Amino acid sequence: MTRATIKDIAIAAGVSEAAVSFALNDKPGVSADTRSRIRASAEALGWHPNVAARALSADKARAVGLVIARSPERVGSESFFLQLIAGIESALAKLSLALVLQIAPSVDDEMNTYRRWWSERRVDGVLLVDLRTDDPRPEMIAALRMPAVVIGDPGNSSIPGIAIDDTPAMNAIVAHLAEEGHRNIAHVCGPADLAHTRRRIDAFRSATSSLGITTIGSQSTDYSESSGVEATRQLLALPNRPTAIVFDNEILAVSGMSTIHAAGLSVPGDVAIVSWEDHVICTATVPQLTALRRDPFALGRRSAAALLDLLDGKPAHGVDEPTPGLTVRGSTRP
Amino acid sequence: MTRATIKDIAIAAGVSEAAVSFALNDKPGVSADTRSRIRASAEALGWHPNVAARALSADKARAVGLVIARSPERVGSESFFLQLIAGIESALAKLSLALVLQIAPSVDDEMNTYRRWWSERRVDGVLLVDLRTDDPRPEMIAALRMPAVVIGDPGNSSIPGIAIDDTPAMNAIVAHLAEEGHRNIAHVCGPADLAHTRRRIDAFRSATSSLGITTIGSQSTDYSESSGVEATRQLLALPNRPTAIVFDNEILAVSGMSTIHAAGLSVPGDVAIVSWEDHVICTATVPQLTALRRDPFALGRRSAAALLDLLDGKPAHGVDEPTPGLTVRGSTRP
Repeated sequence: MTRATIKDIAIAAGVSEAAVSFALNDKPGVSADTRSRIRASAEALGWHPNVAARALSADKARAVGLVIARSPERVGSESFFLQLIAGIESALAKLSLALVLQIAPSVDDEMNTYRRWWSERRVDGVLLVDLRTDDPRPEMIAALRMPAVVIGDPGNSSIPGIAIDDTPAMNAIVAHLAEEGHRNIAHVCGPADLAHTRRRIDAFRSATSSLGITTIGSQSTDYSESSGVEATRQLLALPNRPTAIVFDNEILAVSGMSTIHAAGLSVPGDVAIVSWEDHVICTATVPQLTALRRDPFALGRRSAAALLDLLDGKPAHGVDEPTPGLTVRGSTRP
Repeated sequence: MTRATIKDIAIAAGVSEAAVSFALNDKPGVSADTRSRIRASAEALGWHPNVAARALSADKARAVGLVIARSPERVGSESFFLQLIAGIESALAKLSLALVLQIAPSVDDEMNTYRRWWSERRVDGVLLVDLRTDDPRPEMIAALRMPAVVIGDPGNSSIPGIAIDDTPAMNAIVAHLAEEGHRNIAHVCGPADLAHTRRRIDAFRSATSSLGITTIGSQSTDYSESSGVEATRQLLALPNRPTAIVFDNEILAVSGMSTIHAAGLSVPGDVAIVSWEDHVICTATVPQLTALRRDPFALGRRSAAALLDLLDGKPAHGVDEPTPGLTVRGSTRP
């Protein structure tokens, strides 16, 4: 394994290694002409300043970290994360910053990863996702004094965040279902310990109650296909079966739809369905799924931009995400 | 921004900074007792060896790189890549190696990224995906002497690879469709400049010809939903409309199915469908989709393991992927 070294450049430029070192490190000791000749040789050989050496001197890793604390198998099925990552990339690539990615089996592992990354100077800052209702991470990150931005910040954490208010979106969904005549609506949500799940549960309760709509409330899942099937089966078995169900992502929504069909019921005739995530999958089903139009790509890009501002020494400030719109399709409107 | 320094550890352990430096760098100059006391203090303060300093001395980045040269928007819709990434992660995490990820707009940008990563010592090696039919990357990577493994190597590249032979899988699909009575089959594939697309086109031609099946051949797409719709429309407009279509991924397959339904035709009555990728989406459609059972997660894990062997100084060798099986569902069997 060889890379262009000071020696290679010295030979190519016909100067001493010391002269190369002076030229590339912006130190006096060589003439302007020699300096520019050495630089040209260095460039021709594909030489770049060694990032490790630069990191040591400038204390910069030129990388941003993201840890996702879900099982790797589960992460792969949802479109949200890959789109989010692609959006983060699109902001970092402009500055040739790297994204260092880790999928951790638990929040404890995630915290160990932050400690290691920070002490090893592997990242300059991190993006936090999947905030918990009682989350130890913001406090720990604040204590490390590691620059960070929380994606989906409930607004009371110790580090700046991208605020996502699910209330207007939930109000729009429930209002649409009420308009279509539904008076008994259920909600199949994600893990109850996620802060955004908790916010959606509260928003669902408040939206239904203000419209006088019956609900058995929100059923938690782990976002997997099988948990979506199970939650839907339980709802269909109720004596007061709901006539409409709001699902927290596209995987749950299509699992729920298959379960309704398998039970010999029709969508939307017997049960209407809304997906809290739009994706090509939502237009592939029969009928097509009414879905919330979020933009995880844009969310990733904005989140990375907020972290870059912070790394740039600009004041840390939260950003409010726009309210996603609802695309009405056949699963709620016959 | 402060991290535990030599000074902090010296204060905590009640010794000089020099003693801390000796102890942590495994150099003589302190007693065994003092050494272990200093180490304990360092550990309590969350100190880790600085990865940048270690990278300089050991010439190791402790990171592996992956560049995906597709548009970020496109990458986000397919499940393949996130599952692949999750699999790679699962192998790297055991060794606390980081994955450095970049989505590049073109192969040229991808090559620039490799040059930069390698000269900056940001990665110890890379995984290559989406090999082109006439790909400049293996030669360039070999010239850089950068350790690398190609995922989906056609077997003639200059660097070791994970060999994926699509021929038996294509044979199984075509044989299944022939058994179901189809005598006119089409293939909607990915970009024609991808090596694996080329191999599938060849395999499709050879499988159909050996069974005496009519085909208009393979239609290229860019993997997007809209290109899947367009390719299917063209096939349906043919005077000798195919009675079965093989789609190269799940996004193309569901787009094709919607297009067939929109044209007032039935699946599988008028046109049978096979997806070259199984996903929850394939069981969400009506009818459910017959699909090839690949395992991108396992592929990612095996690819990372092959690269880790290479980094470990073990002999570089290619690995043959197992042939994926076919899950027959309603889209090909009424």
